[in-house]
Amino acid sequence: MTIEKSKFFTQLRVRFAETDLQGHVFFGNYLIYFDEALTQYQHAIGVTFQDLLNAGVDMFYIRSECEYKSRAFFEDVLNVHARVGSIGNSSITFEFAAIKAHNDELVATGKIVAVIIDPQTKKPTRVPEAFRDAIAKYENQNS
Amino acid sequence: MTIEKSKFFTQLRVRFAETDLQGHVFFGNYLIYFDEALTQYQHAIGVTFQDLLNAGVDMFYIRSECEYKSRAFFEDVLNVHARVGSIGNSSITFEFAAIKAHNDELVATGKIVAVIIDPQTKKPTRVPEAFRDAIAKYENQNS
Amino acid sequence: MTIEKSKFFTQLRVRFAETDLQGHVFFGNYLIYFDEALTQYQHAIGVTFQDLLNAGVDMFYIRSECEYKSRAFFEDVLNVHARVGSIGNSSITFEFAAIKAHNDELVATGKIVAVIIDPQTKKPTRVPEAFRDAIAKYENQNS
Amino acid sequence: MTIEKSKFFTQLRVRFAETDLQGHVFFGNYLIYFDEALTQYQHAIGVTFQDLLNAGVDMFYIRSECEYKSRAFFEDVLNVHARVGSIGNSSITFEFAAIKAHNDELVATGKIVAVIIDPQTKKPTRVPEAFRDAIAKYENQNS
Repeated sequence: MTIEKSKFFTQLRVRFAETDLQGHVFFGNYLIYFDEALTQYQHAIGVTFQDLLNAGVDMFYIRSECEYKSRAFFEDVLNVHARVGSIGNSSITFEFAAIKAHNDELVATGKIVAVIIDPQTKKPTRVPEAFRDAIAKYENQNS
Repeated sequence: MTIEKSKFFTQLRVRFAETDLQGHVFFGNYLIYFDEALTQYQHAIGVTFQDLLNAGVDMFYIRSECEYKSRAFFEDVLNVHARVGSIGNSSITFEFAAIKAHNDELVATGKIVAVIIDPQTKKPTRVPEAFRDAIAKYENQNS
Repeated sequence: MTIEKSKFFTQLRVRFAETDLQGHVFFGNYLIYFDEALTQYQHAIGVTFQDLLNAGVDMFYIRSECEYKSRAFFEDVLNVHARVGSIGNSSITFEFAAIKAHNDELVATGKIVAVIIDPQTKKPTRVPEAFRDAIAKYENQNS
Repeated sequence: MTIEKSKFFTQLRVRFAETDLQGHVFFGNYLIYFDEALTQYQHAIGVTFQDLLNAGVDMFYIRSECEYKSRAFFEDVLNVHARVGSIGNSSITFEFAAIKAHNDELVATGKIVAVIIDPQTKKPTRVPEAFRDAIAKYENQNS
C-alpha cells in the first residue's frame, strides 16, 4: 500500500459541471471531492455530521490544502481516499488523496483541518470522546 | 428599449470557475447570475431578502427557465437585467436577460417564479403589500 | 409507474457543497443533477457525449426548465430519472425527475433541450441516425 | 498596512449560491474568490491569462492553501487582496487575503502556486520575462 491510499475511499465520477475551460477539473472542486469523502468517511466510522450536531457540537474548517499532481477529466472515476492524520484537543486533521480508478494515477492530495466548536459560542471545544474512539477503532482495524 | 432590456441591471464578469470544457459558461450558471441579479434588484427597489425575513416571510423558488441564445466566455462582462413580469396572490415571476456589455449581444433569457411562504409551515402566503408597492413604484418610475 | 419515473435513472447523494443557507439544495444545482443524469443516460443507450464528438458533431443546450416540488437536503439520496421526450430535426428534448430514494418524494422535474451542432460552424445539424436509433431502441425496450 | 493587505485588491459580494447550510460561505468557494482576484491582478499588472496564451505558454495550478479566520455571509462585500509572494524558475506563488469591506475583518488567507507550462508537452517552462517584469514593476511601485 502506498502512502496515499488509506483504508477508506469513496468513488465519484467527474461531472461535466466540474470541468473548466482548460478541459480538466477546476482546481477548487477537489475541496468538494475531499469534503464529500469526509462525509462518507464519517459514515464508515459511524459518527456522522448529524451525530455531531445531535451530540451538541458543530464542526468548522480552519484550513485546507491541495496539491495537484495530474489532471482529471470529464467522466474520470476517482477513488477519493480519506483518513485522520492527527487529532488535537479541539482539532482534527483529515488527509485525502484522489486517485484515478482505471489506472491508479494520483491526481490530487490534500488536507482539511477541522475544529469542533460549541454551536452557541462558535468557540473551539474538545473533540468528543465518541468521535475519537470511532476514529481510533476504524483506523486501527485491519482492513 | 428592446423587450429584453429592463430598467434594472447588474453587471458581472464571467469567472474562470464558471466555464466548462466546452470553453463557455456552464449552462447551469446562468441561474446563479439571475439569482444574483434578483438580489440586487431587491436592493434597487428597497425590499431585500433580509427585509422579507424581518417581515416574517421567506421566499422559495418553484420554477426556473433559461433560454441560451449565444455563448459567453471567460472575462466577458454581462449586464444581467431583471424585472417583475407578474405578481399573483403568493407568487412573483421575475424575468431576466444576460447581455454582453461590450457588444449588446443577448446571451440568455430566463424566468424565476418565486413564492412567498410562511417560515413555520413552509406554505404559500400572500406577497406582502410593502413588497408589491416597492415593485410597482420602481417599475412605474421613469428611468 | 407514474409519469415522472422513466426507465432510466441514476442515483446521487446530495453533497454539503450543494446546499445553501436555506438549508436545502440550491435551486440551480438541479440542472447539474439533470446534466449528470443525461451523461449517464447516454451511457445506458450506448451513445456517449464522446461518441458524438467522435462522430463529428457537438451538442449545445438551448433551453432548460426546472420545477421545484419539494426540498432535498444534505445526504438525501436522489434517483434522477431521464428520458427523451421528443426529437426534432436537430434538437432533442430530455425530461428529468429527481425523486428521493427513501420515500419516493418528487423533488424536482425539468427539461433540457439540446441541439446537435456542427463543431466548425456552431450551427444546428441533423441529429445523427445512430443517436436516434439508440434512443428509440432503448425507450421502446421493455424494462 | 497590515501584512494581509497587499496593494492590489478586487471587490466582490457573497452570492446566495456561494453559501452552504451552515449559513456562511462554503469553504471551497474561497479558492474561486482567490482565482478571480488573480485574474484581476493580472489585468492590474498588464499581463492577462490571455496574454500568456498568446505568448505561447499556459498556466496550471500545482498547490493551493486556505486558512479560514472568520465567517463571511450572504451579501458581505469582500476585498480580496492579491500579490506575488515569490517567483521561481517556472513557478509563481500568489498570496491572498479576503477582508470584509465594512469592518476590515480578516475572513481568509491563502496561496496558489502556479506553474508556467508548455501547452504541447504540459511540462514546466520558464516564467516569461515579460510576466516577471510586469510583476516586479507593479509590486515595486509606490501605491
